[in-house]
Amino acid sequence: MKIVIIGSGNVATHLALAFKQAGQTLAQVWSRNGANAQLLAEQVGASAISDLGALDRSADFYLIAVKDEAIAELASSLTGLPGLVAHTSGATSIDVLHTLNHYGVFYPLQTFSKQKSLDLSNTPICLEASSAEDMVMLHQAASLISKVSDEVDSEQRKILHLAAVFACNFSNHLYQMGYSILEQHGLDFALLKPLIMETAWKVQDAIPFDVQTGPAVRGDESTMERHLSLLNDRTELQDIYKTLSNSIKKTHL
Amino acid sequence: MKIVIIGSGNVATHLALAFKQAGQTLAQVWSRNGANAQLLAEQVGASAISDLGALDRSADFYLIAVKDEAIAELASSLTGLPGLVAHTSGATSIDVLHTLNHYGVFYPLQTFSKQKSLDLSNTPICLEASSAEDMVMLHQAASLISKVSDEVDSEQRKILHLAAVFACNFSNHLYQMGYSILEQHGLDFALLKPLIMETAWKVQDAIPFDVQTGPAVRGDESTMERHLSLLNDRTELQDIYKTLSNSIKKTHL
Repeated sequence: MKIVIIGSGNVATHLALAFKQAGQTLAQVWSRNGANAQLLAEQVGASAISDLGALDRSADFYLIAVKDEAIAELASSLTGLPGLVAHTSGATSIDVLHTLNHYGVFYPLQTFSKQKSLDLSNTPICLEASSAEDMVMLHQAASLISKVSDEVDSEQRKILHLAAVFACNFSNHLYQMGYSILEQHGLDFALLKPLIMETAWKVQDAIPFDVQTGPAVRGDESTMERHLSLLNDRTELQDIYKTLSNSIKKTHL
Repeated sequence: MKIVIIGSGNVATHLALAFKQAGQTLAQVWSRNGANAQLLAEQVGASAISDLGALDRSADFYLIAVKDEAIAELASSLTGLPGLVAHTSGATSIDVLHTLNHYGVFYPLQTFSKQKSLDLSNTPICLEASSAEDMVMLHQAASLISKVSDEVDSEQRKILHLAAVFACNFSNHLYQMGYSILEQHGLDFALLKPLIMETAWKVQDAIPFDVQTGPAVRGDESTMERHLSLLNDRTELQDIYKTLSNSIKKTHL
């Protein structure tokens, strides 16, 4: 498959590397910023372009991995391409691409950080296509980099993205709150790492509800009061503590 | 080492199994509830007792793993023992055991669920002792079940426990919120599992701050507004969404 990557951020980088590793031809990497395009293009043996006028119009698959707000404008520069164009956004409808001949969505449900390499083989790729024929090709593309792909429409994808914010973005922020509490008292975050892994590991085989632990689910009010008083100098953390403890209590009533 | 386990809940069970697996002698398991004592005692080849009058007074190590509120009362029944008595609570001071000859704290910083087996070998065991001699024995006991043990005083342990509530208990509740959002819309929680693992995995080598992703850290207000409107029928989730998004924005200002 001959692929053009439109974008050079975290998602663009991880997808480009995964397709390269799967033996595919990365023809071009486009980025508004030529240096960024160059950086990724070199890693995957592609040409770098920063002018869409120089786009290779003979690729099979164009993958748009840019900021959500930029997708519509980019799409308008891609009209008339014979190949399949897909965006990778969880929060953006497929309709933003409707002026194109063949289009779809290729949304990897994962968290991407540039500094960390990532095996995508278990990451669900959520697919949506403008036609049955395009869906076949999206499945083929997904199967090159992951064992898991699912057909998910734009409404469902928005829900998935929302759930992912809770399970991933917010959890990471709570790790950071744990980090910051330990740092304030000269304690090492390494002490928390096995606990963080086990917490994630437990829900691979269980419903989170069934493995909830801690003072809130036990109704242990005296521990919760002591915790809140330890946070007297950090009202923001007190707020989070109260909001989440109350929600745990309600959920487990 | 001859060990008596006082308690039969999650922590008691996992620690008893770990010491058994390390080849130690589990002499007795005490629980107020005789059937529970019996259940755990059978798994580790110990005798079950529900009357502390029947306590084997010749053990080397008595491990108290009961509800925090019950520790003080139990301790008063253990006065005069020649062996070392330790409680396993993150939120309880060592002083609650001060009437005993040899005492300390043996706090495994981990989340325990009865239905899930657990390899404790990387779990930090946080130790505090009433004397240098007792600390030596606590280190010996910890080294039987884990590669990681640390001396942590009662004040530090309270901080660790608080940080663990954020990083573990609250994260698990956010997984549950993700589960519940997907369930409400007929989507499968399995789609989120690789993301949850990767989120935990990322912070094993990085500071959570440096790998924060999602709309709040990007300042993507339009996605956040759409998410809040998707939660219009769930005001509690809206509260959590706002509280945590605002905290992420402040943290990354």
